[in-house]
Amino acid sequence: MTKATKNIQVPKGFLFAAAEGGLRTHGHGPDVALIYSMVPARVAALFTTNRLQAAPIEISRDHLRRSRHAAQAILVNAGNANCATGAQGERAARQCAAKAAELFRIRPEHVLVASTGVIGVPLEARRITGLLPALARRLHPRAVHAVSRAILTTDTRPKVVSRTIPLAGRRITILGMAKGAGMIYPRMATMLGFFFTDAALDPRFVQAAARRMCAASFNRISVDGDTSPNDTVYLMANGMAGNRAITEKGPAGKKFLQTLTEIAQQLAIAMVADGEGAHRVAEIRVEGAASEKQAEALARSIALSPLVKTALAGADPNWGRILSAAGNAGVEFDPRRADIYLNRVRVCRQGGAAKFSEAAVQRQLRGKQVLIRLVLQGGKATARFWTCDFTKEYIRINASYRT
Amino acid sequence: MTKATKNIQVPKGFLFAAAEGGLRTHGHGPDVALIYSMVPARVAALFTTNRLQAAPIEISRDHLRRSRHAAQAILVNAGNANCATGAQGERAARQCAAKAAELFRIRPEHVLVASTGVIGVPLEARRITGLLPALARRLHPRAVHAVSRAILTTDTRPKVVSRTIPLAGRRITILGMAKGAGMIYPRMATMLGFFFTDAALDPRFVQAAARRMCAASFNRISVDGDTSPNDTVYLMANGMAGNRAITEKGPAGKKFLQTLTEIAQQLAIAMVADGEGAHRVAEIRVEGAASEKQAEALARSIALSPLVKTALAGADPNWGRILSAAGNAGVEFDPRRADIYLNRVRVCRQGGAAKFSEAAVQRQLRGKQVLIRLVLQGGKATARFWTCDFTKEYIRINASYRT
Repeated sequence: MTKATKNIQVPKGFLFAAAEGGLRTHGHGPDVALIYSMVPARVAALFTTNRLQAAPIEISRDHLRRSRHAAQAILVNAGNANCATGAQGERAARQCAAKAAELFRIRPEHVLVASTGVIGVPLEARRITGLLPALARRLHPRAVHAVSRAILTTDTRPKVVSRTIPLAGRRITILGMAKGAGMIYPRMATMLGFFFTDAALDPRFVQAAARRMCAASFNRISVDGDTSPNDTVYLMANGMAGNRAITEKGPAGKKFLQTLTEIAQQLAIAMVADGEGAHRVAEIRVEGAASEKQAEALARSIALSPLVKTALAGADPNWGRILSAAGNAGVEFDPRRADIYLNRVRVCRQGGAAKFSEAAVQRQLRGKQVLIRLVLQGGKATARFWTCDFTKEYIRINASYRT
Repeated sequence: MTKATKNIQVPKGFLFAAAEGGLRTHGHGPDVALIYSMVPARVAALFTTNRLQAAPIEISRDHLRRSRHAAQAILVNAGNANCATGAQGERAARQCAAKAAELFRIRPEHVLVASTGVIGVPLEARRITGLLPALARRLHPRAVHAVSRAILTTDTRPKVVSRTIPLAGRRITILGMAKGAGMIYPRMATMLGFFFTDAALDPRFVQAAARRMCAASFNRISVDGDTSPNDTVYLMANGMAGNRAITEKGPAGKKFLQTLTEIAQQLAIAMVADGEGAHRVAEIRVEGAASEKQAEALARSIALSPLVKTALAGADPNWGRILSAAGNAGVEFDPRRADIYLNRVRVCRQGGAAKFSEAAVQRQLRGKQVLIRLVLQGGKATARFWTCDFTKEYIRINASYRT
């Protein structure tokens, strides 16, 4: 049976625990989390594309290679990214994993690590290892909520989504959790995302599902266009639902991927909504493009434009900036055949001003969610991308984050 | 003789005038400017790389083709970009040029136009053409200052630089003026830049000089990473200094290009210093790179990072964000062999924290100018890039610019 906790279903065999290691420079509360699967799980991992890679990424990559993508525990901390910390940082990450393995009598390579927080500050391993006995005692499905809060940095709320679906003759559960909230432009990117399922999955499908899920969710959002050197997504499948292993082909694989992607999109949008200083989320939808690649490039360019994002903060229906940002995408398209809609109102028609009630559109733009549609006449391809507004609070948060 | 006006030398044969057409949505004052050369001049033009191109760019491009890169007048307006204005916008731009040509009895293609301001609002040509008789009466070298103010939008100060040098047996003068101050990430970008010289230049050298000057100045700055659809740089050489035409090869060509580039760099840095809401300018200098291309990519990525720019606003010596932004440049380099200096203090040594006085560096970072040096051990190539801090005022300006 999966455990229901405040409407969150926890997949079978996954246990959670959080504790306070005093790693945060601002505020207090739990900042170290442990996630444990009762049996070894198959694991897919996606890491940042930043040339600078945090120590926990280097170590986890090594562990995954040695374990052939199996793991039983994830040890996470917030407050310190353990990044740009040299050989000392790698020793600290390795030591944390080794101590956890010792405690559970599992192999060190079956422990993955993840860190988020300030870059360039040495991590004292004992702040984490000293908490391991207490973490082990507290392991419980309901602690998923404590863990979802322990991994946060500048986020203002936890992000957890779960779904239980009938699949391959069993009821299987998928649970995802993630954290933002700055340096967010995941190109497998400060974000951490953890996905757990009790479904049995074919080994090749675990990695493919993780990759395809990310491409349609975390890789389609931006808070500030900065890709973090700590971005990590793990997908763990422990097979405890008892189904026959699901492969990529066939209806079960399709349905699993679809549900996983929906969970990831909900988390990705929640991450943008909780972006540093954000007041509202915009979904950028490009339609009528010649190819999905073109549609994505246009949506991405609009989503990344500071001028579009500040107009959004001001609830200003400034379609000229949207068209100009599209023009900077580095792809061919005809701006003279472009229409732009803000929510349901056409504000730009064939590359020029459309007639609309400025006051009415402004009122709409003051909502929590805005849909920006760029409609071209170049083909049938579409793409979606999510971004947030760029506010004074973003500046306040980031002009004083570290010191 | 060149005319000295408040330490600005005006090249021989260039006359200036400004007037008020009521085009600005905020504030008052002159917003239309005319620049006139007493004889036809050779012209080089560089326009935005945005797929969306403003009407004055389309029209001027056509005029330059028809005139084989000769021109005698430039008609500029601020307050309205005449961009995304369709066929009406093109008619308005063409009409402005035609009326000016009629007044001076020159060919319409010898008149270039340039606009800056809000995108997507129809431009009423008569607001500009109605001012032409008054502008013609006011033409004068000293009006260069009035023109340098008339072309501004969110800029807080005019930007004019001139130099007079002995060259090819004559005293020749180069004058440059430019405006920013948002949507600044010129990849030939809302910027306008006008350069005038009385030197005689070989036709091929005019275009080469303009291109090389831009590559080392305007194409190395960013306020917000948004490239405007109106960016225009014109270089006009009218030959009135009486020298023999200068070619690219040889010492005179080198010296001319160097002086032109120094003027452009001064204007580019002034543009960044006057970036929307900016309090300080950072010069990013990458040293020890494998190639200039790699050095430029790294410098550009650091300069564009909102997290580096907000840390700069907070005078926070956050070298981790600098290293992380370099890591996102999309080029290969070893972060473990990177040193970072803020002004003269090494804050990062071999990819990790260096020992330094946090308080002392913070005090230094509160100045108007900051030097960020990333020193690699990959080779001998270097690159410079200029950026400004990202402040709450930037958000305030852009959340309410249009409405």
